[in-house]
Amino acid sequence: MRALTIHGPKDIRCTDVPDAALPDGLGAVVKVRLAGICGSDLHIYGGHGFSDDTGYTVGHEAVGEVVEVGDQVRRFRVGDSVLIPASVGCALCATCATGRVSTCEHRGQPWRQYCYGMSHALEGSQAEAVAVPHADVNLVTIPDEVGDEAALLLTDNAPTAWYGARRARIAPGDTVTVVGLGPVGLLAVQSAFAMGAARVLAVDPVAHRRERAVSMGAEPVEADDPKTRIRELTCGLGTDAVVEAVGADETISLAISAARVGGRVSVVGVSQNRAFPFRMDTAQVRELEFSIGLCSAQYELPALLALTAAGRLDPASLVTHRLDLEGGPGGYELLSERVDGVVKVVIDGR
Amino acid sequence: MRALTIHGPKDIRCTDVPDAALPDGLGAVVKVRLAGICGSDLHIYGGHGFSDDTGYTVGHEAVGEVVEVGDQVRRFRVGDSVLIPASVGCALCATCATGRVSTCEHRGQPWRQYCYGMSHALEGSQAEAVAVPHADVNLVTIPDEVGDEAALLLTDNAPTAWYGARRARIAPGDTVTVVGLGPVGLLAVQSAFAMGAARVLAVDPVAHRRERAVSMGAEPVEADDPKTRIRELTCGLGTDAVVEAVGADETISLAISAARVGGRVSVVGVSQNRAFPFRMDTAQVRELEFSIGLCSAQYELPALLALTAAGRLDPASLVTHRLDLEGGPGGYELLSERVDGVVKVVIDGR
Amino acid sequence: MRALTIHGPKDIRCTDVPDAALPDGLGAVVKVRLAGICGSDLHIYGGHGFSDDTGYTVGHEAVGEVVEVGDQVRRFRVGDSVLIPASVGCALCATCATGRVSTCEHRGQPWRQYCYGMSHALEGSQAEAVAVPHADVNLVTIPDEVGDEAALLLTDNAPTAWYGARRARIAPGDTVTVVGLGPVGLLAVQSAFAMGAARVLAVDPVAHRRERAVSMGAEPVEADDPKTRIRELTCGLGTDAVVEAVGADETISLAISAARVGGRVSVVGVSQNRAFPFRMDTAQVRELEFSIGLCSAQYELPALLALTAAGRLDPASLVTHRLDLEGGPGGYELLSERVDGVVKVVIDGR
Amino acid sequence: MRALTIHGPKDIRCTDVPDAALPDGLGAVVKVRLAGICGSDLHIYGGHGFSDDTGYTVGHEAVGEVVEVGDQVRRFRVGDSVLIPASVGCALCATCATGRVSTCEHRGQPWRQYCYGMSHALEGSQAEAVAVPHADVNLVTIPDEVGDEAALLLTDNAPTAWYGARRARIAPGDTVTVVGLGPVGLLAVQSAFAMGAARVLAVDPVAHRRERAVSMGAEPVEADDPKTRIRELTCGLGTDAVVEAVGADETISLAISAARVGGRVSVVGVSQNRAFPFRMDTAQVRELEFSIGLCSAQYELPALLALTAAGRLDPASLVTHRLDLEGGPGGYELLSERVDGVVKVVIDGR
Repeated sequence: MRALTIHGPKDIRCTDVPDAALPDGLGAVVKVRLAGICGSDLHIYGGHGFSDDTGYTVGHEAVGEVVEVGDQVRRFRVGDSVLIPASVGCALCATCATGRVSTCEHRGQPWRQYCYGMSHALEGSQAEAVAVPHADVNLVTIPDEVGDEAALLLTDNAPTAWYGARRARIAPGDTVTVVGLGPVGLLAVQSAFAMGAARVLAVDPVAHRRERAVSMGAEPVEADDPKTRIRELTCGLGTDAVVEAVGADETISLAISAARVGGRVSVVGVSQNRAFPFRMDTAQVRELEFSIGLCSAQYELPALLALTAAGRLDPASLVTHRLDLEGGPGGYELLSERVDGVVKVVIDGR
Repeated sequence: MRALTIHGPKDIRCTDVPDAALPDGLGAVVKVRLAGICGSDLHIYGGHGFSDDTGYTVGHEAVGEVVEVGDQVRRFRVGDSVLIPASVGCALCATCATGRVSTCEHRGQPWRQYCYGMSHALEGSQAEAVAVPHADVNLVTIPDEVGDEAALLLTDNAPTAWYGARRARIAPGDTVTVVGLGPVGLLAVQSAFAMGAARVLAVDPVAHRRERAVSMGAEPVEADDPKTRIRELTCGLGTDAVVEAVGADETISLAISAARVGGRVSVVGVSQNRAFPFRMDTAQVRELEFSIGLCSAQYELPALLALTAAGRLDPASLVTHRLDLEGGPGGYELLSERVDGVVKVVIDGR
Repeated sequence: MRALTIHGPKDIRCTDVPDAALPDGLGAVVKVRLAGICGSDLHIYGGHGFSDDTGYTVGHEAVGEVVEVGDQVRRFRVGDSVLIPASVGCALCATCATGRVSTCEHRGQPWRQYCYGMSHALEGSQAEAVAVPHADVNLVTIPDEVGDEAALLLTDNAPTAWYGARRARIAPGDTVTVVGLGPVGLLAVQSAFAMGAARVLAVDPVAHRRERAVSMGAEPVEADDPKTRIRELTCGLGTDAVVEAVGADETISLAISAARVGGRVSVVGVSQNRAFPFRMDTAQVRELEFSIGLCSAQYELPALLALTAAGRLDPASLVTHRLDLEGGPGGYELLSERVDGVVKVVIDGR
Repeated sequence: MRALTIHGPKDIRCTDVPDAALPDGLGAVVKVRLAGICGSDLHIYGGHGFSDDTGYTVGHEAVGEVVEVGDQVRRFRVGDSVLIPASVGCALCATCATGRVSTCEHRGQPWRQYCYGMSHALEGSQAEAVAVPHADVNLVTIPDEVGDEAALLLTDNAPTAWYGARRARIAPGDTVTVVGLGPVGLLAVQSAFAMGAARVLAVDPVAHRRERAVSMGAEPVEADDPKTRIRELTCGLGTDAVVEAVGADETISLAISAARVGGRVSVVGVSQNRAFPFRMDTAQVRELEFSIGLCSAQYELPALLALTAAGRLDPASLVTHRLDLEGGPGGYELLSERVDGVVKVVIDGR
C-alpha cells in the first residue's frame, strides 16, 4: 500500500510499504479516510524525531473504516466508522481500561508504545491503512452527527486542548488566557468557552490566528508586551486560568505571569527543557498551580464527542488545506514554511 | 412614599407608606429603579403568604441607587448602582460573610430575616425605596457592562436557576433536562449551556415557553408523556442532570424519572409537600442523587455577573412586560391569569 | 459439589449441586475459601427473595482461589488468590470497564446479571466453588497484606459503607451521623474516620453494636429520641453528613432530620418503599442533598484495599462467628434471630 | 511592655517597647499567653529579614486573651480566648471575608500588611501583648477542647501543613511523601493521615525527626538517595501526592521526582529562587501537577479546629521546649544551632 515515510530531515516521501496487517487477536486494521499532519510531525520532518529509525510511516491522526478485526475484539466490527486516538493503551491495566492511557501501569515496558508514527514499532497512519493494537481501547466509534473532519481533529488536537483546559480547572465565569493559537490553542479557546469561561484572552504574534480566535469570541492580545496587556485587560489581576499551547520557554513564562493570585496554569505545548528557569519566589507569593502533560485522547472523548455532535464545539472549522496522499509531502512544506492562512492540513484518502 | 402593599387575597394596592429609613449604622437605603414580580409573590397574592401580617410592602427583587448609608458600611457609598439579592444575610456569622446566607449560623433566631416583602419585619422593594440591612453583605455593585434589567433578574431568578444547575453538577458534555420554563426554568436552560451542557431537553406544557427555550438551543419536550419522550431522546437512558423549576408533585416525579442511572436531580421549584411520595426502590437501583433548596443569591453572583457582563448569559431577554408602580397591581393580574406571552413582569420606577 | 440452596421461607439446606463450570472463554471458576452471609441473604431466607426461582445456590460474598480460567482472561491465572465483588459487570461497556458496574450501559438487558445467588441465572457462592463471568472485571487480586476475612468483608459490606460515606461527601473535619450499626454501618463508622471525620455519632438501639462503634471512636446515640440527642450533640445544628445503613422508613427519616442546613444524606440501607413520605418543605429550607444507591464494589476497592493493607481500616474485626458449609443453615438462624453479640457470620471452607 | 526586638543579625533582645494599643475601631489588643518561634523568624534572626526596619518586635504566632476591642468589632469581646492567625486580612474585600486572605483584592496596596513581626508596620507578637487589625477576620476563638499549645501551632505551622496537603489533593487511600520533617513537615504527616492517606513516606536527614514521623504512622526514608528508596517502597511508581516543607532546590527537585505519573506535588517550604531549574521534559511525560504557596490560616482553621478538638490531630505534641519572654533570645539560639531534639520552641507568658 502507499504511505508517507520519513527518510531524513525534510525528506518525507509517498512510497510503497507492506500492507497493514492484524497484529494479533486483539487488534484491528483501519482503512484511512482522513489523516492529519500534527505539529509534532514537524519535529520529525525537521530532523528531531523521537527514534533513530528511518523509513517508517509517519502520522498519528486518522479516521477511517474498520476492515479487519481480531477474534478477541468485542466492541468493533468490520465496517465500523472509527477515529483512532493518537494515544495508545495497553488494554490490560486498570488505568488503560478507563481511557487514561497516559498513566498506564506498564509505562516503560519495552512492548508498551505510546503513539503511532514515531518508529517502526508502531507504523503511522498517513497511509492507506493502519494496524491498531488492542482495538477495544484504541478505537472510538464516530457518531452519525460527527463528520470525518471533526472526528480527525478529535484524535489528538482537540483532546489535547480540552485536557489542557480541564487541568487549568476552568470554572463557569472565569477569565482565561490562551497562549499560542495553532490548532491546539484555537481549540483551547473553544474548550474554555464550552467550559463556561466568560472571557478568553488569546495571545499569538500572527494576525490571522488572532482573528480566528476573535471569531470564536476571544479578545486578541498581540505579541508586543502581552504580559502588560493582559494586566490591563484584567484590572491588574491576571486571569483565573491559563492554557499554554506552544512549549517554548518564553511562552511558558508568559503563561505563568498571566495568572492571577491563586490562578492555574496548564501547559500542553511540548517542552524539551531540562532546566526551565522557574520563578519560585513569585510563584509562591502568588499561590500558583501549575500542570504540564500530554493527554489521553480516549479519556477526553466522551465529552468532546457529545459537544461536537451537538454543534457546541466546531473542530472541523480549523481545517484550511486538503491534499491527497501523494501530495502529502507538500503539506509538510506548507506547515513548515508557515504559509499565511495555514492552520490545519489534512490528507484526504477518500 | 408609594409602595405596593398586600391587604388580602388578590388585593394588592399602590398606597402611601412611611419612607424607607436606615435600620442602623450597618444598613443602607436604596432608591428603586426596577422591581420584579416573582412567582413567590403570586403565592402571597393568592392568599398563601408566609406570615399573618397584612398591609406590608411586597417584593424582593430590585435594583437601584444607594441614597443613604450607615456609618459602619465599608463597601458602598451614596450614588452606587446596586442590585439587592433577594436572600438576606446576618453579616455576622462566617457563612454569611462568604455569601452563603442560606446556611447562616443564626437561622432560626427571631431577628434573622431571610427575605424582603414577606411581612412587616422586612418591608419589600416594590416601592420607591427600600431599606437594606447589613449593606456590606446584602448589596452588590452592578458592573458597567450589566444593564438594569439583567441586574434585576440577577437578584433572584438567575441565581436560583444557576444554583439549581450547579447542584445538579452539570459537567461539560452532559445532557440535561429542565422541567418548567418560567423565568427560573428558562434561566436554567441558559445556565446549563453556560456550564457546558451539550444538550438541554426543555419540558413545559406552554408552547411559547418551549419556543423560548428552543431559541436558546434547547430541544422541546411537550407535556404529553414527557417521561417517554425524554427516554426516546436519550437512547432509553435518561439525562445526566435534571433541574426542576416548578415544585409540584408531578413535576418533581417527572424530574426523578428523567435522570439516567447515576444521574443528579436538583429541585428549585418551591414545594410545600410534607409527604411527597418518593419512589425509594427505583431511586436506589438507579443510584439517584437528589437535592432541593433555595439559593443564596450573593454566593452565585460573581460567576453570573461575569457571564452576563460578557454576554454569555442574557437574563434581560426574559422581560416581556413593563409597568410603572401605580400599574403594579395589574402586573399581578397578568401573571396570575397566565396571559399568553407573559414571562417576566417588571415595575419600572425610573 | 456441596452448596447452600434455598427451598422456601426459612428453608436453606446444604445440598449437592452440579460442579461450578467455566461459563465461557472470559470466565473463571473460583474455589471458595470463605463466604459471608449478608443482610440481603436474610431477605431471601425470610421468603422475600429477588426471583421466583427455587433450589438455587445463595450467597454473594466470597474469597478463594482461581482454579480454572477461560482462554480470553488476561489478568488472572490459576492459583491467584482473589476476592469476588458482589456486583457483576458486563465487561463490555465503557462504564463496566472502569469498575462502575452499577451504571452498566447494558442494564436491563436479559443477559445482564447484577449479583450472585439471587436466582439460577447466576449461582451463589455459599458453596465449594463458584463460576465467575467476565473474570477480568469481576475478580480482584487479594494483596499479600490483606487477610481472607478482611477480603471477604471487602466483597460487599465495606464497599457499600465506603460508597455511602463517599456519596455523603465526607470532608476532613466533618461531623457525621451513621444510622444503623450492622456490618455496613460499623464499616461506615470506620470509613467516615478514614475520610477525615472529626466526630461520628453512631445510632442503633442495640447496646453491643453501639459499644463496637464507640471502640472505633464514635459517640453513641441511643434509640430513644435520637433526633433530639443529635441536635444536643451538635449545638442544635445537625451533622454535616449522614450515612443510613438500615433502609427502613423511620431510619431514613431520622437520617434526613439529622443533617445540618446544607448537609448531605446518603442511604445505602435497602429500601423497598414505593412512596416514602419525603418532607420536601423542610428539606428545601434546609438545602438537603440526598443520595441513595447500591455500590459497585469494584470501583471502591482500590482505596479500600490500600487502607486495609495499611491497617487503617479493619474490616476483619467485624467477624464474630465462623461455621463450616454444612453448618451454614445455622448461621442463617443466628442472624435471623438477632442473637446477642452477632455481627458478621462467615462460612469457612478452608 | 516587654517584647523581643531585632537589632541586627543574631541580635534579638528582650526590651521595653510601647504598649500595644488599639489601631482603630475595627482592631483589638490581645494579651499574649503563648508565642511561637517559627522557621521564618530564623531568617530574620540570621540577618535575612523581610524589611530594612530595625528594633521592631518579632513573632507572628500567638494565642492569648482579648483585653481591648474597637467599637466596630462584632465577633469578639474582652475576655475571649483567641488564637491569632499569622496571615492578616484586610476585612474589606470579598476574598478576605471568606478567610482567603492570601488572595486579598488589596494585595500590593501599601496599607495592606501580610504578617506580624516583619517590620514596624505591624509589630510582632513575641511580646506581652499585640495589636490586631480588623479583629473580625484576624482573630479566631479557641474552643474549650483545644489547649493553648495546640492553638499556638494552629496559628501558622498546622494551617501551612494542612494547606500543603490539601493542595496536594490527598485522597483516601493515597500514598504520600512528605519531604522535610520540621514542625510543618510533621504536621503534614498528621494532615495526610487525617485526609485518609494509607501510607506516608517521611523524608529527613535527621534521625529524631524521622522517629517522630514514624511514631505518627509514617515510613521513614533516610537522606541517602531518597529518590531511589521512594521508588523501592512504591513498586517503582512514586507516590500519589508529595508535600515539600523545606524550600531548598534539592528538596523541591526530590519532591518532583517522588511523584507518580499523574501525581501532585505541593510546596510550602519557602523558596527564594528566581530561576529554579525545573525539568519540564520529564514533568510533561509524567503529567505533573505542581503547586506552591503560602497559606491563609483563617481559611484552613475550621477543619483543623474540629480535628484538633476531637483529638484526631495532635499539634501540641510537637512542642519540645518552653521558655519565658526574657529567655526568648535563647530560644532563637536553640533553633539556629539545630540542637538535637528541638522541634518547636514556645515562649510562655502565662
